[in-house]
Amino acid sequence: MAEKCIAVTMGDPLGVGPEIVARTVADPEVNRVCRPLAVGNREIIVRAAALWGIRRFEARFGDNIIDVPLPADVPQAAQMPGLAGTVNAFAGQMAFDSIVKAHELCMSKEAAAVATAPINKEALRAAAVPYIGHTEIFGALTGTDDPLTMFETDGLRVFFLTRHVSLRKACDLVTGERLRDYMERSLKELAKLGVTVTQENPLAVAGLNPHSGEHGLFGTEEVEIIAPAVEKAARDGLPVAGPVGADSVFHMAHKGKFAAVLSLYHDQGHIATKTLDFERTISLTLGLPYLRTSVDHGTAFDIAWQKKASPVSMREAVLLAAKYAF
Amino acid sequence: MAEKCIAVTMGDPLGVGPEIVARTVADPEVNRVCRPLAVGNREIIVRAAALWGIRRFEARFGDNIIDVPLPADVPQAAQMPGLAGTVNAFAGQMAFDSIVKAHELCMSKEAAAVATAPINKEALRAAAVPYIGHTEIFGALTGTDDPLTMFETDGLRVFFLTRHVSLRKACDLVTGERLRDYMERSLKELAKLGVTVTQENPLAVAGLNPHSGEHGLFGTEEVEIIAPAVEKAARDGLPVAGPVGADSVFHMAHKGKFAAVLSLYHDQGHIATKTLDFERTISLTLGLPYLRTSVDHGTAFDIAWQKKASPVSMREAVLLAAKYAF
Repeated sequence: MAEKCIAVTMGDPLGVGPEIVARTVADPEVNRVCRPLAVGNREIIVRAAALWGIRRFEARFGDNIIDVPLPADVPQAAQMPGLAGTVNAFAGQMAFDSIVKAHELCMSKEAAAVATAPINKEALRAAAVPYIGHTEIFGALTGTDDPLTMFETDGLRVFFLTRHVSLRKACDLVTGERLRDYMERSLKELAKLGVTVTQENPLAVAGLNPHSGEHGLFGTEEVEIIAPAVEKAARDGLPVAGPVGADSVFHMAHKGKFAAVLSLYHDQGHIATKTLDFERTISLTLGLPYLRTSVDHGTAFDIAWQKKASPVSMREAVLLAAKYAF
Repeated sequence: MAEKCIAVTMGDPLGVGPEIVARTVADPEVNRVCRPLAVGNREIIVRAAALWGIRRFEARFGDNIIDVPLPADVPQAAQMPGLAGTVNAFAGQMAFDSIVKAHELCMSKEAAAVATAPINKEALRAAAVPYIGHTEIFGALTGTDDPLTMFETDGLRVFFLTRHVSLRKACDLVTGERLRDYMERSLKELAKLGVTVTQENPLAVAGLNPHSGEHGLFGTEEVEIIAPAVEKAARDGLPVAGPVGADSVFHMAHKGKFAAVLSLYHDQGHIATKTLDFERTISLTLGLPYLRTSVDHGTAFDIAWQKKASPVSMREAVLLAAKYAF
C-alpha cells in the first residue's frame, strides 16, 4: 500500500489542538488521500475524540494514534482537559515531545511529512523549551539554518522576502542581493514540491509601491532595485517576472497566471491569502529534510475543549502535506 | 414610480465602455432594482448593443439612452468603432462630454447617482481636457476639494488614509491628525450612505506593521501614533476600533465584524478587496453632492469592440450606486 503517512502533532493539549487533530484523523476524506497519524498522548486525543462523539471510525482512529509517553512527574493526563485554556508547563512539554516524535517519524521515513497543530509560546517557555516556536524547533531538530515559509490558499502560493520586521525596515530590506537569494530559494523549493515553474507560468515578484511606483512617480524601488534584479535573474534563465503591481499580482496568481508570488513584506502576502480564505490559509515550512505544514491559527484557549473548534484549517494542512510530501 | 435613475457614462468610446454599458443597461436584473440610463452618443451605444445581439429589451433599452451630441467636427460616429483600441482626441472629448451630462443629470435630480465606465487619460489629454481623471473631473464640476474614495467588494468596505504615494511616504503620513481627519470623514460618509456604524460594529483602523507591531517589537507606529489616536477618538464618542492587525482586519470586516476598515496605504486595502473578488471591487467617490461609483478596470483597448468584455464590474457598479444613492 503506497499510502503516505502524515504525522499530525497534537499541539498544546490545553488548546484546540487535540480536538481538531482527532477530528482530522477520523475524517473519511482525509483517510482516502493519506494515512493521518495523530502524534501525542493517546489518552488526551481519545478524550478529545469522545468529546466530538467520534466512534464510527474507532478501529482505524485508534490505529492512527502514535502515543507519546507523558513527561516525568506529569499529573494524570485525564486531568489535563480540566485545565483547558491555561498556560501549563506540562502541556508545553507534551506539545514539544509530540513535535520531537513527529520529527523522528519523518526522519525514519515512517511519515512522509508533518502537519502541526498550534502550540503556546508561554507554555513552551514554562516548560523551559529553549525555542520560541515551531519553525525554530524544526530548524534546530534538523540543523536547518534558515527555513523558508510559503503560504498556500486555494492554489495561490506566496513566499515572503521579509516577515517579522517593521514596514519601514521591510522597505530597507528590498535589495538586489536579497531578492536574488529569495527568487533562487523559492524556485528550488517549488521544484522540490513538484510545482512546475516556467517562463509562461513564472514566479512573480510583487511591486513595493502602488502600481509598482508608476515608473518612479511614487517610489523608486521598482525602477532602481526590483526591475533590474528580476531582469538579471530572467537573463540568467530563472523563470521569474515582475515587478507586478501588488493589487493585481495575487489575483492573477490565484487565476493560474503565476506559479507563485514573492511578496516583499509580511502583510502584503498575508492580506492576500487570509482575505481570500482565512481558514484555508496554510503555512508550509520548506528547506527542511521533510515538509512541514501548519494551521495559521493559534491555540484558541477561549474555546478549547468546548466542542467549538473548527477543524477546517487542520484538515487543509494535512491535505496539503499529503499533496506535496516529497 | 419611485425608481432610482442611475446615470451610466459611456466611457471612452474606443474602449470597452460602450459594450459593458449597453449590456448593463439592458440587463433585466439591473432594471429590476433601478432605471439605468446610458449617457453617451446614442449611435455608438446602439452599435455596441448590436454587437452583443441586444434586441429583446430594445424598447426599454432605447428609452434608457440619454443622447450626448457629438463634438463639433467629429467624424461620423459610425466610424469610431473602426478606430477601436486607439487613443483619439474625439473619443476623449466624447467621454468627457458624457461625464458632464451625467453630472448635470445628477445635479438636476433626474439621476440619483452616477456609475462611470473607464476613460483613457491620454485621450483626455489629446482632447485638451484639463483634468487627469474622473475624480478630478467630478471634483471640479461639483467644486469639491478632496473627494473621499471607498472600495466595496462583497460587503467589505475599505477607506484609504493614503493612496498614490510611495510606501515609505505612506508610513510618514500615518499621523494622529490625519488619522482623526479620515476617521471623521469616513464615518460622515458612511452615515450618508445609510451604513450603521456602532461601537459593536465599528470602523476599524488597520495596523501598519506585522501583527500591529506586536507591542512595539517590530514597528512603533501602533504604540506611539495609531492606538492613541483611535483611543482618543473612541473617548470622544466615535465608533472606531483598532489598530487591528492587517492580516485579519479585512477578513473580520468581510465576515461582518466591522462596518468598514480604514486602511493606511494603497495596497493594504487594494490587495484585500481585489484578491477577494477582482471584478466585483467597486470604487465609490464620496464627499460629492451625489454618489459616484466606478468600475476599477481600464479601457481594455486590447479587447475593445471584439465582443469579449465582461460587464460584471459595470453591472456591480450600477447595483452599488442604486443601493447607496442618497
